[in-house]
Amino acid sequence: MTSQTPLSLPDAMQTVAAEIDVQFERLLASPGDPRDLLYEAMRHAAIGGGKRLRPLLVYASSMLFNVGYECAIRAGLAIECIHVYSLIHDDLPCMDDDDTRRGKPTVHKQYGEAIGVLAGDALHALAFEVAADPATHPDPFIRAELAFELARASGPSGMAGGQMMDLAAEETRFDLSTTTRLQQLKTGALIAFCLEAGAILGHVPPEGRRSLRAYARDVGLAFQIADDLLDVEGDAAVVGKATGKDAQAGKATFVSLLGIERARAQASMLVDQAIAHLAAFGQEADLLRQIARYVVERDH
Amino acid sequence: MTSQTPLSLPDAMQTVAAEIDVQFERLLASPGDPRDLLYEAMRHAAIGGGKRLRPLLVYASSMLFNVGYECAIRAGLAIECIHVYSLIHDDLPCMDDDDTRRGKPTVHKQYGEAIGVLAGDALHALAFEVAADPATHPDPFIRAELAFELARASGPSGMAGGQMMDLAAEETRFDLSTTTRLQQLKTGALIAFCLEAGAILGHVPPEGRRSLRAYARDVGLAFQIADDLLDVEGDAAVVGKATGKDAQAGKATFVSLLGIERARAQASMLVDQAIAHLAAFGQEADLLRQIARYVVERDH
Repeated sequence: MTSQTPLSLPDAMQTVAAEIDVQFERLLASPGDPRDLLYEAMRHAAIGGGKRLRPLLVYASSMLFNVGYECAIRAGLAIECIHVYSLIHDDLPCMDDDDTRRGKPTVHKQYGEAIGVLAGDALHALAFEVAADPATHPDPFIRAELAFELARASGPSGMAGGQMMDLAAEETRFDLSTTTRLQQLKTGALIAFCLEAGAILGHVPPEGRRSLRAYARDVGLAFQIADDLLDVEGDAAVVGKATGKDAQAGKATFVSLLGIERARAQASMLVDQAIAHLAAFGQEADLLRQIARYVVERDH
Repeated sequence: MTSQTPLSLPDAMQTVAAEIDVQFERLLASPGDPRDLLYEAMRHAAIGGGKRLRPLLVYASSMLFNVGYECAIRAGLAIECIHVYSLIHDDLPCMDDDDTRRGKPTVHKQYGEAIGVLAGDALHALAFEVAADPATHPDPFIRAELAFELARASGPSGMAGGQMMDLAAEETRFDLSTTTRLQQLKTGALIAFCLEAGAILGHVPPEGRRSLRAYARDVGLAFQIADDLLDVEGDAAVVGKATGKDAQAGKATFVSLLGIERARAQASMLVDQAIAHLAAFGQEADLLRQIARYVVERDH
């Protein structure tokens, strides 16, 4: 990948998003039997409209370590399976009870709750099928590490744990440090794994991944603060889902804890800090630098 | 493990069940933070009362191939995480809407639906964390294969696909061959993986696993027919969950398609056939032979 001229952020986003759609079309093709509706529901949720920020991060991190394009895309696909499953389950009536997502009806609205639960579960399993598939990387050590770290990032010590904290936040008003911890688990762990995946695919040992982990921590938090700002200030039509929901639920957010101005300043500081962590890298890290700025400037 | 005298079925069941409880206690220990209720809900579902048939099958299959006890138990634990997550999600109001399981309130009855969804999701991720963990096996090829095959057995080409067919069975009355296919996916795929796991851990290549696969297919179907018979004839207090539900839902089962007598004869024939597939093995396969008989003779 380093032999190519680094793509600009809009080009990279478009390339990765189009490729992930192609991969999902292949992975989720209907088998032509009574399971077809499950595959249709998965495609409904997985294809079209997403920013594909996570696969883009894998791609950008892979550029630092001479990782093949195909490997980076497959690892990104595995992570996107987890992300999409989490959105389907988050939208369920017993969770956030959302009717629209990316401007379309949510899966349970379109196909019913039972298929909503099942489509999420099926994508969850597919994430690990993709990660551990010999087609993703010929080295079994890398496949096993991808599956292991993906599980840690998405399970109770990562995303699912953060979602539990998010439920608890409806009962107890968390302070800034607990809210930060909540977000580090709920969205930060999976984002951090995206950066780590490039390093795993590039045979970089854990001790060589420190600056990427620091970048991931800062970008993940900046991303969440930007999300909280969009929830307060965003246009639901552009954001593609209902806004103002956290405030209604009485949950502490970075905006409710810090106020709009300080939250915006904090996000901006985190982006500068994230970029500073990439100082040891040259031009091959430009995409990661652009992504850091993008996460706080986006409007959806 | 072959250096030990083979255990009798009751002893092996007790040993494996006790060991799986110990492993779950360790895996699901509360972290002492706002995620504690999620861990409590997982422990509620995972610990105590289960037959642990799947870990027992891994253990019994591992005995054929000189696999270490620790490795067999860890692989069984991973599969049991999948089994328990599937029970939690199956019991949800939008799925089977069950209030009791193993004589206790179901997770959503005890902790609410949101935690029911999350506890299932968290155990689902933990299954792959355990399978791909270096503590499960030192050879990364084996860890990657365990994770890959576990994902295939539990995702849309396995268990989740079977559950989709089960939902479709409420609308369309399936014939015997479609009902057989449904059960092969819904319960058979994971049971087959239990047998395969022993072979994977024992470095047996896919072409050497044929007789085990045949055994698994027959035992899996016999198990399901026995389940259908228990649903019609069983005592809810002994079975530990509501009975007669399939008939109420108007779903085709082996019993409704074949009648009680033919269903019982079919299960018995499948058991004989399963045992015949083990002809190439000696005394080390006695536990598998006993398990085949047990699955149709159990009362819960």
